Amino acid sequence: MTELPQGAVIGILGGGQLGRMLSVAASRLGYRCHIYEPGAAPAGDVAYQVTTAPYEDEAALRAFAGSVDVITYEFENVPTSALDLLESLKPIRPNRKALAISQDRITEKSFLNTLGLQTAPWAEVNSETDLRAAVEKLGLPAILKTIRLGYDGKGQVKLEAVAEIPAAWASMSNAACVLEGFVAFDREVSVIAGRGVDGSVACFDPGENVHREGILLTTTVPARLTANQHSDAILLAARILNALDYVGVMGVELFITPKGHLVNEIAPRVHNSGHWTQAGCTVDQFEQHIRAVAGLPLGDGHRYADVVMENLIGDDVLRVPELLKARNTAVHLYGKGAPRPGRKMGHVNRVVSK
Amino acid sequence: MTELPQGAVIGILGGGQLGRMLSVAASRLGYRCHIYEPGAAPAGDVAYQVTTAPYEDEAALRAFAGSVDVITYEFENVPTSALDLLESLKPIRPNRKALAISQDRITEKSFLNTLGLQTAPWAEVNSETDLRAAVEKLGLPAILKTIRLGYDGKGQVKLEAVAEIPAAWASMSNAACVLEGFVAFDREVSVIAGRGVDGSVACFDPGENVHREGILLTTTVPARLTANQHSDAILLAARILNALDYVGVMGVELFITPKGHLVNEIAPRVHNSGHWTQAGCTVDQFEQHIRAVAGLPLGDGHRYADVVMENLIGDDVLRVPELLKARNTAVHLYGKGAPRPGRKMGHVNRVVSK
Repeated sequence: MTELPQGAVIGILGGGQLGRMLSVAASRLGYRCHIYEPGAAPAGDVAYQVTTAPYEDEAALRAFAGSVDVITYEFENVPTSALDLLESLKPIRPNRKALAISQDRITEKSFLNTLGLQTAPWAEVNSETDLRAAVEKLGLPAILKTIRLGYDGKGQVKLEAVAEIPAAWASMSNAACVLEGFVAFDREVSVIAGRGVDGSVACFDPGENVHREGILLTTTVPARLTANQHSDAILLAARILNALDYVGVMGVELFITPKGHLVNEIAPRVHNSGHWTQAGCTVDQFEQHIRAVAGLPLGDGHRYADVVMENLIGDDVLRVPELLKARNTAVHLYGKGAPRPGRKMGHVNRVVSK
Repeated sequence: MTELPQGAVIGILGGGQLGRMLSVAASRLGYRCHIYEPGAAPAGDVAYQVTTAPYEDEAALRAFAGSVDVITYEFENVPTSALDLLESLKPIRPNRKALAISQDRITEKSFLNTLGLQTAPWAEVNSETDLRAAVEKLGLPAILKTIRLGYDGKGQVKLEAVAEIPAAWASMSNAACVLEGFVAFDREVSVIAGRGVDGSVACFDPGENVHREGILLTTTVPARLTANQHSDAILLAARILNALDYVGVMGVELFITPKGHLVNEIAPRVHNSGHWTQAGCTVDQFEQHIRAVAGLPLGDGHRYADVVMENLIGDDVLRVPELLKARNTAVHLYGKGAPRPGRKMGHVNRVVSK
């Protein structure tokens, strides 16, 4: 596929806030978006077309594929059967390999280790016996995670003592799991990296993340990194994208430790920790992803301001009236209706330089 | 009306690029937009709903008004009959007075002069005899303009010699006209000014405009103004908005002369010369307009970068492949299909500082 022409339609699997901001970015480049979403779709408010249907609806999937020029996603847990069908009809970017790897924590860690990249020490856990052996090997504290479908702190439990093993295992309902050993890290950063059809890679400056109850709360740029740590982070992210022959934007979460960078997780899509790029960059992560998916040259990820991004989670959104009055503050709301605990309702970008 | 709640629907009359960018801005604040447009509507690609109907279709206008919480416009030449009907059903912001004034060059100039503001010298022209008298009074060169429906250099002709009078008048097809005397100005600037429901006013930094064949080509911020010229421009714009009890964003075009500022034209809507605010400001003119119309507090118009906005007119859009590769350059395309001479196809914002 060469460059998508003006007016072409980009299909997006998933209609949440990421799809919403992707659709807006696509419009800046003269493209239209068709959203496929089984549930409520805030992205539909700013999309050319919306299909509301389950991922098991073959007719809906076929009609969707027929109406678009290329398919991307804002959500990595699309069922394999749907992807198989869609891929037979239209190109999917980023490719299936990236999706398959990120859908399974063990596949992901194995892939990263094979690339020569460090991860937290880990062990596969399929039974309470496995869990005891893993704790023996990795020590405590440690975190038990389901290998699939976890996000925003869901599907994981922290283990602090051997006595907690039975309850921890029981809470996983026999799902395949991985135990991750404790990592004494200085800070967590994300690299938002894009790779084009031509193989060129462009990374935004690493952002420093702070979580609250397992959910990203703030990302700050610049991150507190030495020049070497900064370039190592970017080279490492580029190595991952190149190895996957990746096309699009990926979020790469890193633990910065005295012994080098460990990869915590990769997300084959635009990422919450990249929302800061909407302020202080001429091309944000959403447009960068659309450029890659559309076969356009990657944009300039140069940053011309310092930014703090803060998520508005649950009742945080009640602060909006005050945030709307704040200086140097861009408010982004997702149109999701009533706040629920843990629900991402919006975010703000504060420009802190100049 | 108090603040519009999340999920409320804003009706926009006109579906061009201004409506498109307004709809995107509204989505950032959690609102949805319903576009009313008789013709092709690029705004429809990123709108919640679109009505394609003429402004004479009373049933369509009623249905539109019934589906929205407030009405605004991206285009000032909506027929009076449509506005009368809509206003009886839902609030229109900015108000009808601002529209009535800007729809008629003579009413506009009279209003501005009454406020104590300078305009180019002018005279009403309804016949060739009037035109001769006006040329006698104002001298040459001068510009003959229809009093209604002119934009982007349409409906106007420059007069350089008395011998051109008959042809110039004939070209106006007996439309009511105004002759504007020549102004020796140093530069033309625009102030993009917003006023909220609470009467507060916020202005973006004045931008300096360059035209090509009567159409805006570039706007540069900062404009080359002394500190006094800068503050005079902003105070003058604020005076206009206050006098009209205006709610929304207005574009105020000024000629900067050794004898002070002259008002060239006002536009009761977001304005092409404010597109630069999409780069280097946390809140752009589109969001500022939506905030005002929705009854929210105005945003911080503080500028944190220097910017040059360039319109892509007609075949300029063929430069897009090269512009997409340029550093510090944000490309905005309107999804309009094939280029035509004089047609605004998109714009670029170049961040020139830092």
